[in-house]
Amino acid sequence: MWRRIKEPPSIISALDVSFDVAKKIAYELDKITHVSGLKIGSMLVMEHGLKVCQALKSNVPVILDMQKGATDIPEIVREQVKLAASYDVDAFIGSPLGAGSGRGTTKQGTLEAFVSACMEYSVIPIVVLEMTQPGATYFIRESACEELAQMICGLEIPYVVAPATKPERITLYREIFERESADVEIISPGVGPQRTGDPLKDSAEAVRHGADHVVIGRAIYKANNPANVALKIGGEIQKAFRERKQCLGKKKKSD
Amino acid sequence: MWRRIKEPPSIISALDVSFDVAKKIAYELDKITHVSGLKIGSMLVMEHGLKVCQALKSNVPVILDMQKGATDIPEIVREQVKLAASYDVDAFIGSPLGAGSGRGTTKQGTLEAFVSACMEYSVIPIVVLEMTQPGATYFIRESACEELAQMICGLEIPYVVAPATKPERITLYREIFERESADVEIISPGVGPQRTGDPLKDSAEAVRHGADHVVIGRAIYKANNPANVALKIGGEIQKAFRERKQCLGKKKKSD
Repeated sequence: MWRRIKEPPSIISALDVSFDVAKKIAYELDKITHVSGLKIGSMLVMEHGLKVCQALKSNVPVILDMQKGATDIPEIVREQVKLAASYDVDAFIGSPLGAGSGRGTTKQGTLEAFVSACMEYSVIPIVVLEMTQPGATYFIRESACEELAQMICGLEIPYVVAPATKPERITLYREIFERESADVEIISPGVGPQRTGDPLKDSAEAVRHGADHVVIGRAIYKANNPANVALKIGGEIQKAFRERKQCLGKKKKSD
Repeated sequence: MWRRIKEPPSIISALDVSFDVAKKIAYELDKITHVSGLKIGSMLVMEHGLKVCQALKSNVPVILDMQKGATDIPEIVREQVKLAASYDVDAFIGSPLGAGSGRGTTKQGTLEAFVSACMEYSVIPIVVLEMTQPGATYFIRESACEELAQMICGLEIPYVVAPATKPERITLYREIFERESADVEIISPGVGPQRTGDPLKDSAEAVRHGADHVVIGRAIYKANNPANVALKIGGEIQKAFRERKQCLGKKKKSD
């Protein structure tokens, strides 16, 4: 059914190195029968783009490992943040859900490595709490996402990502942050095509439920006049944000 | 403590488009006060390298979202696989742990989208079952990794990734595949620096425990003679693989 790389056992060589070194190694491994693949990681691709895959290709198959943007082992995550910083990246969205935390161990886990690297290189960390797609929490469970939200407060992370496709989940996270008096802003993707199809309505709903920022994809980039769409959505979320703050003010007064 | 992008509420514009379109949109959004960030996704970076971040930078901060290599929403994962295929990539390592499965819903989840896109574009899918680092299963739980291994069998995925840092976990996955008569080969990273420090010993141990392929990073690329190291490790794993098959033969005979 699938092509196979090579009969086991074999070696896949991870080329988490500069292009020149990778090329040298690819050349040297070309005739080694035990080597079944050259693993091209996100660092090379981020630096040069995917053309490295072609450039390094020889007799040995090329395996692309995008290393899950800040979802890899702590050592790689630190390198990703450093490289991104050197290219003027302001903020980095990291997703430690599948990669974990060192809490309870004596070592830094992926979450902690991500945050400390962001601190070191002055990159703003944005942590994905929960994703938008159907079945997103199938493996991870909603309770683990909520525990991550709690940990965010202790780590003083300024931004998180929570799904506009599930406004009630945004509210739940907002409540966690308020309970902990944590100054965390919520960024919500998933408006428009992933939700009701109406990005204006969805954006406003997300903000009313506790989102501070919305991520807009297709609704803007497929528009005839992107600036115009951005302006319209901007108006809607401004209104929704004001409503939310007023509600909160009333609630606090009545408490 | 952290720089902030902009006061809420705001719009982050996801530029999951071609560079020319992204540039046009970035220009158009430059003066829109509601827009707090340009989100540069993995597609642009994979195509052009991180220099796109600099090229698109204006008054609006640039947010890098590497979209977790096949760990994003199904729509993006499909695009990643397609783009990788167009650049001669043979195999793609996807990690659906944090992104889920559509099982139980009426839709394709990330896992299923990854597999079907690989099929469509003739890319070999490799699925991460469990990662190597401390606390890797802190959010995900080992039981979810095991459930993913079970699902792999039904989806006829040819390769998985399991951690050489935890050989007993490799054995557990190997047993699942044998019980299900699934022809799945196990790729193991995490030998050398992440384990005992001795890549030869660690590689052999991983293979004895059920790994079919080992991923070698630093041990090869930092070596004075990478080919030589590859040859040595190749010898070790060949021996270990033979031992494992013999054991299995004996076990089957005695059953």
